[in-house]
Amino acid sequence: MGTGRVEAFSDGVLAIAITLLVLDVKVPVAGPGRLAHALVHEWPTIGTYAVSFAIIGIIWVNHHALFDRIARVNRPILFLNLFLLMAVAFLPFPTALLAAYVDKGGPNSHAAAAVYAATMSVVGLSFLGFWLYLARTPAVRVASFTDDDARAALRRTVVGPVVYLSSVVVAFVSAPACLVMYAFVAVFFAMPGAGSATTPGEDPAPARR
Amino acid sequence: MGTGRVEAFSDGVLAIAITLLVLDVKVPVAGPGRLAHALVHEWPTIGTYAVSFAIIGIIWVNHHALFDRIARVNRPILFLNLFLLMAVAFLPFPTALLAAYVDKGGPNSHAAAAVYAATMSVVGLSFLGFWLYLARTPAVRVASFTDDDARAALRRTVVGPVVYLSSVVVAFVSAPACLVMYAFVAVFFAMPGAGSATTPGEDPAPARR
Amino acid sequence: MGTGRVEAFSDGVLAIAITLLVLDVKVPVAGPGRLAHALVHEWPTIGTYAVSFAIIGIIWVNHHALFDRIARVNRPILFLNLFLLMAVAFLPFPTALLAAYVDKGGPNSHAAAAVYAATMSVVGLSFLGFWLYLARTPAVRVASFTDDDARAALRRTVVGPVVYLSSVVVAFVSAPACLVMYAFVAVFFAMPGAGSATTPGEDPAPARR
Amino acid sequence: MGTGRVEAFSDGVLAIAITLLVLDVKVPVAGPGRLAHALVHEWPTIGTYAVSFAIIGIIWVNHHALFDRIARVNRPILFLNLFLLMAVAFLPFPTALLAAYVDKGGPNSHAAAAVYAATMSVVGLSFLGFWLYLARTPAVRVASFTDDDARAALRRTVVGPVVYLSSVVVAFVSAPACLVMYAFVAVFFAMPGAGSATTPGEDPAPARR
Repeated sequence: MGTGRVEAFSDGVLAIAITLLVLDVKVPVAGPGRLAHALVHEWPTIGTYAVSFAIIGIIWVNHHALFDRIARVNRPILFLNLFLLMAVAFLPFPTALLAAYVDKGGPNSHAAAAVYAATMSVVGLSFLGFWLYLARTPAVRVASFTDDDARAALRRTVVGPVVYLSSVVVAFVSAPACLVMYAFVAVFFAMPGAGSATTPGEDPAPARR
Repeated sequence: MGTGRVEAFSDGVLAIAITLLVLDVKVPVAGPGRLAHALVHEWPTIGTYAVSFAIIGIIWVNHHALFDRIARVNRPILFLNLFLLMAVAFLPFPTALLAAYVDKGGPNSHAAAAVYAATMSVVGLSFLGFWLYLARTPAVRVASFTDDDARAALRRTVVGPVVYLSSVVVAFVSAPACLVMYAFVAVFFAMPGAGSATTPGEDPAPARR
Repeated sequence: MGTGRVEAFSDGVLAIAITLLVLDVKVPVAGPGRLAHALVHEWPTIGTYAVSFAIIGIIWVNHHALFDRIARVNRPILFLNLFLLMAVAFLPFPTALLAAYVDKGGPNSHAAAAVYAATMSVVGLSFLGFWLYLARTPAVRVASFTDDDARAALRRTVVGPVVYLSSVVVAFVSAPACLVMYAFVAVFFAMPGAGSATTPGEDPAPARR
Repeated sequence: MGTGRVEAFSDGVLAIAITLLVLDVKVPVAGPGRLAHALVHEWPTIGTYAVSFAIIGIIWVNHHALFDRIARVNRPILFLNLFLLMAVAFLPFPTALLAAYVDKGGPNSHAAAAVYAATMSVVGLSFLGFWLYLARTPAVRVASFTDDDARAALRRTVVGPVVYLSSVVVAFVSAPACLVMYAFVAVFFAMPGAGSATTPGEDPAPARR
């Protein structure tokens, strides 16, 4: 089985998950002349929308970079991919949860941020598992992706889970800090030259030398 | 008509159905400090999300394997496929129903599980009908898919409806047992070497010899 | 501009509209032991889901048959298509409306059925407009689709709007009758040999002679 | 990286956003014989649905015209595109907001229209940023798209943000006027010969000479 249909299906799931995020931005019920005020109080919803949109966008970019290294799809890849998609397609829930509780403070905001951070950790670990499988299974890789490339990719991919798992700790300190942290991660990935094997860019050399 | 566009449309419907599942995971309304507790009580929602996601994922895999055997699409195939998609696209409803009632016990939990099991039975019978049609209509099959292959595929596909119809009985005993049963089916299909003509894998030999 | 991307976008919209229908099947709130009863009372929701799913499925089939006759896409075709998609993507609303009121009887059920019938009329008239444009604009057609074919297609396509506009009248007599009428239309189109230029099938001869 | 997958992902997001609009058309709860009346009072919902559908449709057309000029996708294009999609995928929210408040009058209707206009301004500015990047980065353009074409495209694209930013002002005068203004923009773009480099049509000459 080639990678085409798995990629098309994954693209579909990611495109839908990223577009469903807006459904959690609810129209506020406001008394006469109070709508502008009510909309300003919706900042957590807008903020979490933007951050989650950026994060799923980056996941999509990374997913492509991953499948660019895969030559043929077998059963383990199919189910690793379904597991990864299950975590990503779940993101609209922690996004809505964080939007509802991030500005409430106290243990509720920490719990909401922790669920978000835990979901992102699962996403990060899924990617790590994928690259680990590729490193150990040369038969499924494209020829240009060598053992050295695979080890380098693995080292760089470890950054994701480390950041996301440590954000679980941040969640218990401050939920808004957690959101800001993710916004920084998104901006970092959007900048040219971000050091990840899993991001495409002007210089594919590191991963394809 | 080639199979390309039917497969693309079906992939779209399956990708959307699998991603819509998260919309039934609702943000709980919790008093101060009670969110963690409320989230733990959401286990049925998380559990049914994971099981239904895995099941639609497997349906997607099986749907591909099915269309790999089809060389040209005619009207009966078009409408068999629409009927199958109608059942699969309906799954978010029984999923939400089971999530709402699985931990309530009594006749309500049985009714919810029975609706889930009935929907899965329709899915299983649709696949069976598809393979039956292929077995009887060599003209629509790819050349490498022989009469013997078709009979073998049919024998293996019978397992699905048998499992799903028997889960209707399990539903009336215990709704959580029903959910656990589906989780096992999902794990079983994810393991290498699962004996189904409709799953792709390392050894396509049995179905393509 | 080739037809590929317009068809892919249209397929996406149709796949999403058909899959969103399930969101209007709501989980009933039922007292202990009352869920089975409550589910039986949901028959209008299940019935309208099945009918609308079948109708959008048939629209998808007809949309393909239409674009099979188009060689190149220009601005009028682009906007005719957007108008058609606007009507089809709207169908989840009249479906939910009909589901909510079909069994209530009286003027409310008639109004709901009339909205459904009016939406279907717009869909039918859009298709008619499309075929009319093709009949008058040979430059956009594939070579094998002659003037005679175009006139024949037009004559057969007229059936749709006639049926749908007359269902507006039926709506004011009985809403359930309207639903049954659409179910019959769906079954009619699913049968082999249904006399429409816009349905693919075993004998493309009439439209392609 | 070629443009194919970015376009397919963008098409997916646009197709989903345009189809989700219907979810904001809610079934009214009406007393006996009052449904027709209640539906007439839903005109803002129907009106905003039609306008937003047309606007996203036109964005889709413009997005294609844009990517027809792009030969290869690099990181800045990837993130410019994600930013543009973030704004477009957000449109169902201002649409629902405007539908809820357009006929209420007073500051609330102005605030709702201003949010809609602001979102459209971001969309317009994203397109402008895109064409600006193309004008300054010949390396990513298709060969037939010259410096002169790029400057011409840029001049014509400026119209969008100017219209949308001025609609923010209109929003504070009259929300319905804002909606009517967008309807005119949609009709204007649908007419043949509309003077924009970003719309496909019978004469691609201006942009491709």
